[in-house]
Amino acid sequence: MYFHDKRLQYPVRVETPDPLFARQLQQAIGGVEGEIRVCLQYFFQAWGARGPDTKYRDMLLHTATEEIGHIEMLATAVALNLDKAPLSLQESTAAANPVVNAVMGGERPRHVVEGMLQRHLLSTGLAAMPTNADGVPFDCSHVYASGNLAADMYANVTAEATGRTLAVRLFNAAHDPGMKDMLSFLIARDTMHQQQWLAAIEELGGAAALPIPDSFDQGQERGEFSYVFFGTEVGGALPPDGRHTQGPSLDGKGSFSTMQNTPMGEEPVLGPAREGSGAQARQIGKPAAG
Amino acid sequence: MYFHDKRLQYPVRVETPDPLFARQLQQAIGGVEGEIRVCLQYFFQAWGARGPDTKYRDMLLHTATEEIGHIEMLATAVALNLDKAPLSLQESTAAANPVVNAVMGGERPRHVVEGMLQRHLLSTGLAAMPTNADGVPFDCSHVYASGNLAADMYANVTAEATGRTLAVRLFNAAHDPGMKDMLSFLIARDTMHQQQWLAAIEELGGAAALPIPDSFDQGQERGEFSYVFFGTEVGGALPPDGRHTQGPSLDGKGSFSTMQNTPMGEEPVLGPAREGSGAQARQIGKPAAG
Amino acid sequence: MYFHDKRLQYPVRVETPDPLFARQLQQAIGGVEGEIRVCLQYFFQAWGARGPDTKYRDMLLHTATEEIGHIEMLATAVALNLDKAPLSLQESTAAANPVVNAVMGGERPRHVVEGMLQRHLLSTGLAAMPTNADGVPFDCSHVYASGNLAADMYANVTAEATGRTLAVRLFNAAHDPGMKDMLSFLIARDTMHQQQWLAAIEELGGAAALPIPDSFDQGQERGEFSYVFFGTEVGGALPPDGRHTQGPSLDGKGSFSTMQNTPMGEEPVLGPAREGSGAQARQIGKPAAG
Amino acid sequence: MYFHDKRLQYPVRVETPDPLFARQLQQAIGGVEGEIRVCLQYFFQAWGARGPDTKYRDMLLHTATEEIGHIEMLATAVALNLDKAPLSLQESTAAANPVVNAVMGGERPRHVVEGMLQRHLLSTGLAAMPTNADGVPFDCSHVYASGNLAADMYANVTAEATGRTLAVRLFNAAHDPGMKDMLSFLIARDTMHQQQWLAAIEELGGAAALPIPDSFDQGQERGEFSYVFFGTEVGGALPPDGRHTQGPSLDGKGSFSTMQNTPMGEEPVLGPAREGSGAQARQIGKPAAG
Amino acid sequence: MYFHDKRLQYPVRVETPDPLFARQLQQAIGGVEGEIRVCLQYFFQAWGARGPDTKYRDMLLHTATEEIGHIEMLATAVALNLDKAPLSLQESTAAANPVVNAVMGGERPRHVVEGMLQRHLLSTGLAAMPTNADGVPFDCSHVYASGNLAADMYANVTAEATGRTLAVRLFNAAHDPGMKDMLSFLIARDTMHQQQWLAAIEELGGAAALPIPDSFDQGQERGEFSYVFFGTEVGGALPPDGRHTQGPSLDGKGSFSTMQNTPMGEEPVLGPAREGSGAQARQIGKPAAG
Amino acid sequence: MYFHDKRLQYPVRVETPDPLFARQLQQAIGGVEGEIRVCLQYFFQAWGARGPDTKYRDMLLHTATEEIGHIEMLATAVALNLDKAPLSLQESTAAANPVVNAVMGGERPRHVVEGMLQRHLLSTGLAAMPTNADGVPFDCSHVYASGNLAADMYANVTAEATGRTLAVRLFNAAHDPGMKDMLSFLIARDTMHQQQWLAAIEELGGAAALPIPDSFDQGQERGEFSYVFFGTEVGGALPPDGRHTQGPSLDGKGSFSTMQNTPMGEEPVLGPAREGSGAQARQIGKPAAG
Repeated sequence: MYFHDKRLQYPVRVETPDPLFARQLQQAIGGVEGEIRVCLQYFFQAWGARGPDTKYRDMLLHTATEEIGHIEMLATAVALNLDKAPLSLQESTAAANPVVNAVMGGERPRHVVEGMLQRHLLSTGLAAMPTNADGVPFDCSHVYASGNLAADMYANVTAEATGRTLAVRLFNAAHDPGMKDMLSFLIARDTMHQQQWLAAIEELGGAAALPIPDSFDQGQERGEFSYVFFGTEVGGALPPDGRHTQGPSLDGKGSFSTMQNTPMGEEPVLGPAREGSGAQARQIGKPAAG
Repeated sequence: MYFHDKRLQYPVRVETPDPLFARQLQQAIGGVEGEIRVCLQYFFQAWGARGPDTKYRDMLLHTATEEIGHIEMLATAVALNLDKAPLSLQESTAAANPVVNAVMGGERPRHVVEGMLQRHLLSTGLAAMPTNADGVPFDCSHVYASGNLAADMYANVTAEATGRTLAVRLFNAAHDPGMKDMLSFLIARDTMHQQQWLAAIEELGGAAALPIPDSFDQGQERGEFSYVFFGTEVGGALPPDGRHTQGPSLDGKGSFSTMQNTPMGEEPVLGPAREGSGAQARQIGKPAAG
Repeated sequence: MYFHDKRLQYPVRVETPDPLFARQLQQAIGGVEGEIRVCLQYFFQAWGARGPDTKYRDMLLHTATEEIGHIEMLATAVALNLDKAPLSLQESTAAANPVVNAVMGGERPRHVVEGMLQRHLLSTGLAAMPTNADGVPFDCSHVYASGNLAADMYANVTAEATGRTLAVRLFNAAHDPGMKDMLSFLIARDTMHQQQWLAAIEELGGAAALPIPDSFDQGQERGEFSYVFFGTEVGGALPPDGRHTQGPSLDGKGSFSTMQNTPMGEEPVLGPAREGSGAQARQIGKPAAG
Repeated sequence: MYFHDKRLQYPVRVETPDPLFARQLQQAIGGVEGEIRVCLQYFFQAWGARGPDTKYRDMLLHTATEEIGHIEMLATAVALNLDKAPLSLQESTAAANPVVNAVMGGERPRHVVEGMLQRHLLSTGLAAMPTNADGVPFDCSHVYASGNLAADMYANVTAEATGRTLAVRLFNAAHDPGMKDMLSFLIARDTMHQQQWLAAIEELGGAAALPIPDSFDQGQERGEFSYVFFGTEVGGALPPDGRHTQGPSLDGKGSFSTMQNTPMGEEPVLGPAREGSGAQARQIGKPAAG
Repeated sequence: MYFHDKRLQYPVRVETPDPLFARQLQQAIGGVEGEIRVCLQYFFQAWGARGPDTKYRDMLLHTATEEIGHIEMLATAVALNLDKAPLSLQESTAAANPVVNAVMGGERPRHVVEGMLQRHLLSTGLAAMPTNADGVPFDCSHVYASGNLAADMYANVTAEATGRTLAVRLFNAAHDPGMKDMLSFLIARDTMHQQQWLAAIEELGGAAALPIPDSFDQGQERGEFSYVFFGTEVGGALPPDGRHTQGPSLDGKGSFSTMQNTPMGEEPVLGPAREGSGAQARQIGKPAAG
Repeated sequence: MYFHDKRLQYPVRVETPDPLFARQLQQAIGGVEGEIRVCLQYFFQAWGARGPDTKYRDMLLHTATEEIGHIEMLATAVALNLDKAPLSLQESTAAANPVVNAVMGGERPRHVVEGMLQRHLLSTGLAAMPTNADGVPFDCSHVYASGNLAADMYANVTAEATGRTLAVRLFNAAHDPGMKDMLSFLIARDTMHQQQWLAAIEELGGAAALPIPDSFDQGQERGEFSYVFFGTEVGGALPPDGRHTQGPSLDGKGSFSTMQNTPMGEEPVLGPAREGSGAQARQIGKPAAG
């Protein structure tokens, strides 16, 4: 179960509110690289963790709980950036007037309204919402919790790698010192979170835990195709040699090689459509019903 | 651009059609762990690949093209498994009759209809569709192509790890020898694809390419928080020590430590709601309009 | 604007309620082949109709309004089919008892609950909802209203063709005489609606209105590719000759021919990733930032 | 920011695991009446709360934080109910054998697999996921946070009313005493949460805060239509008299009356389609381009 | 069943077409606060209404039918606002020229194209579509029809409260007198619709019908938690006293009190992963398969 | 199975990169009128084709494979149009400076950032993604493959008609000669694809294959309603006479006529809500539980 403290994990300050930056920050809230995703992903992995010890369940609960606080920081930042957004087209046009501009910080011509997420104006009363930067709501199918610990740890590294990439892009796009400071903190936490899931992979055996899942008897897979790169270039050209075309595989259980892809199966022929299946009569092999 | 061969990459045979297994196979077509996802993911990564050499673009195109053939194999398998599905409730009830059962292979009582994806009957005429095993259409937000090569390679390992986990589960659930054979091939290919993206990560520098993105000057992040595990247990308990709590970090750029999470920010206070923003009068600090 | 009559357009009677048939009927309400779709599609086409006369706007309003009544009939049919659905697993198990079965019509073993849409039990109190037969909510992106009258009429033929196919499948799956009667009416209306949109296409000029849109000067398209079937079979095999490979095209503006697809473009090379874009340093062509 | 305790808010025990009940419980996790929804809804309302005092922000944070623990309880309950689910069709068929049944608790015939959410088997390794009982992922567009405090409080009453209705249905469907006990607790909390948002509405002024938003000058609305029930029955029949047809309105600002709906506007005529807009030539009023 | 009149319920006039206002109006068509939602919500509630009298079914049919006409008015308004939208970037740039501006009303610089919903240009031929103001299609999961009359009436109050809030925001954002007039009518109707559902709640018993559903025996809920506000502040601080912390509850069936949340359950321990479940070998407690 | 050639089907060149045009091109990639849709639609139709000959399966495979190359061309065009997009608000503002403008081609004021799809900047590193022009991800429910060959061919004509309409709109909106050239090629291919599916319809029997499905015995439909246009205008006005109101029907199986719609059914009365169904006590006809 859970508790809260009304204060934020790290300070959130905005000197020059910018409704477009509010829009961009939404990607870090409700985008697939964002904080709702990692928060729910770590929680669902923890709540479904099976196995002889509870170590990874524990680790996941700590970090999932930290992530709620990150959503909170970003939602606060969105609201602060929307503080002076124009509520109407007139206000926006007025803002193009230099005098008004001076009052508002000099950066609010009409196209501000046009670049905003309209739902920031129309649906939220100038606050954050659980959507991405183009207004698409977060959809929980992005919560990866497969029941396989190693697969999940790679999913978590991926989430934090795309998450840190996003945070860096936001840092580069930002012009407000408060926003840059907040993002420098979130980037640091993404660094740690990448590291901790990679540490978990190492602890789970690293290469020895491959291929994922390592509980499947490889004797039952068609082993002659398990370490072969298939080429599909129509003329038979293969990609330049690399780590994946020769030498031992990374799981230490095979050797890489290459091969041009070629059909081993036949042209598939499905049975005719059946009476009563709603196909055209021709597909069933009978005259039209009339 | 692209070419096709009418034959399948690997044989697809079904001896005892099973409409429920047809449903389960849908997860490997239109589920988030499925083949449409990896196919489109590798294509979009290839088509957007930027950088001084085209090596990874090449590798991605080869494997993306192979994956189209995997969707084709699975779609064929779904159609073959639906060949004898009952088209009506009567037919299903009739099938519970032992005589009819004998004709149909002995396994079609009425609840077969109930376990099926209804759209297999109603919308496709007994064929595959781009949905998962519970009927949810594939949604292309799952195509991860971040523009950061290392993040994308981890996303690809994740996709193939969850993909192989799924294929193993389908192998275990299957009872038809043709289906087991097809899956033993797809499992082998998932093994290779896991390996090749891990090989690419090694080639990209492995630990040296961390943290992702490695193009961001870490001097700009709040480094004191970059290698610290934050605990959120209300009593201050931390998870058991592990690779992630002490010793050098995996990128070789810091040392792990732990710390209890504590508020560094203040309670946020947003400005009052603005006149004309549609809030209640009380939120604006004025009397109701009446 | 609109009016209602509390009575139904056509009688809806259910003698033997069947919760699984309730599920199947959902496809005709909230499936992509269903009535919500055609209703909204015809309304949005009508409301956005531009052109010198209002004839098609009129036709669309009539039929869109009729379709509301079809959703109503189907929603009523779903509720009637759910009248005796088991509310609990115990009730379902009890129903497997022959005595209870006799009372309930003899067809309610436990797996009835298992085949039902769970939301019929849990979310609606035994009534219809705007989802398809696998529980996926209708999504209004399926409302095709392109602003091009000919394209829209073909979209309408498609909607009624898939709609009649669905209604036929439901008719074949049904065992209740009331349901068969209702569906025989809906099938007749789908026949008419197919016909009326085809009549509109003929009236709009038929072949003379092709290609759609016919307002684009074909002199601006690369005409040498406008009537050529491109083959992509890797060995150069083309499909068997047919109406589409030779002779005059259907718009009377060209002659069909065939050609093997071949690259006319070059391998694309995108610029390198830019400084500050969040890519790996390697993609930007600089050393890692460290 | 947030903290956790590894223990659950209330005990979760399952004596007889039932994979179908696991499916039904999903509605309370990822359904629109479920706990993810209220949790995120209260958080986003809190994080965007504007106004002179922070009282409602506080209240929302307390209850949002409690709701995380409810998702956790339900996710635990789903995993426990899946503990003995058949992993394969063979296992399921075997379970129909009375001897195996005795071992497994006597309730696992094959159709158990058919009634399950297939992703419980294929995607999660027998654990909860953020979807509803028919497998549709939770979509955050259901997080209502309008920026208007009174509207949000009504949204919260609605969420808790549909939530308690769902919990009651699950209680009635359940057969396991542990599950009934857990649900009796969740129902009690839904009772309280309904009550507290109703208390907030009373505190915000009750009828005096109507109509919502009360910050809009009603002199600007077409007041002659503000308290009139419009009838649309084609013959002019109105619904039976009731509280809404006569007497003072509930906001005390008008008197109810009734009126048959009648067109006050004209038939709309849009301009013709424009050159270059992709319409058919006929819609633009020019000959086809040829 | 249903009928139509080609004329609009209320006049829709646009003097100065504004493509951005067309975008904003989309929220009132296909947003979650919009008219498609209330229209379908009232219809599905009516079509599924169960109970001894048909009074509320009647009321719902009248108002649902009225709402179709509101979608029609708004769709007409969107099309009229798009009448002069630039079809190309050149046209938009040209419009920045004062002479062209004068012709077009002086407000169409290039960024008009940039602020538009691109699908207004590319997909509809300058007409309305069933999406919200950020282009997200309406998704029918927002149609709340729970089968519980009181819960549904609260859902309807919520829908009309957020709907009126939206209409007020659009009124404030509008600059065209025709649009302001149309919105003043829609706001008045939202006032009435709020009132009539509140009247229905009063008629259903008001507090006496609580808690919802009132058909559940409260003796079966854990009554000691039914009227207690749980605090989750980590230091034990409770929110300021209010109507919800003391005194009689609003249903008259209990007394409010407060309590700090504390774990009553234990740390959950799930069983180990099972053989064949696709987990890592370590989770199953066996060596890797190799 | 499939092969690739690294070269493009047709040249893709961009002289003046325009991030807004990149956004518009997204509609042709991930919009419902776009290339992912036709590609997957033709593949799924091919993979599920049933019938005595494989002619249409062949035709579909050829064209589906061609379409992959069209997605590739468009994805390349998007990336090239994003080459110089501003990564930050500062860069955008700087670009408003004439000197910078000259360097960048003179067209990048700040509102360029505002008109862009934010995910082009934040999620892809300046590359294409599988969404439409307003950022909504492609959803595979738009893949129409009904199992009825004639219905599918009409769906394909529709897809190519809306596709060509979109391509024409993009051609008209474009200002870059490379883009106009690419689009002139894609428009030509859309012309051919429209034609070939129309040719298939003719080959399948044209009018003789109607109504779709032609395998249903029309003696089982309520034939008196099969060729009658129903009017719903409240005063009984019918639309102007046309091809659909008199004369032989297009399938040659009936004669068109018209009739005013009128209720043939009764007002539906559902049974009362059941005990335990979660309705209000009043709906069940019992006193509240208290």
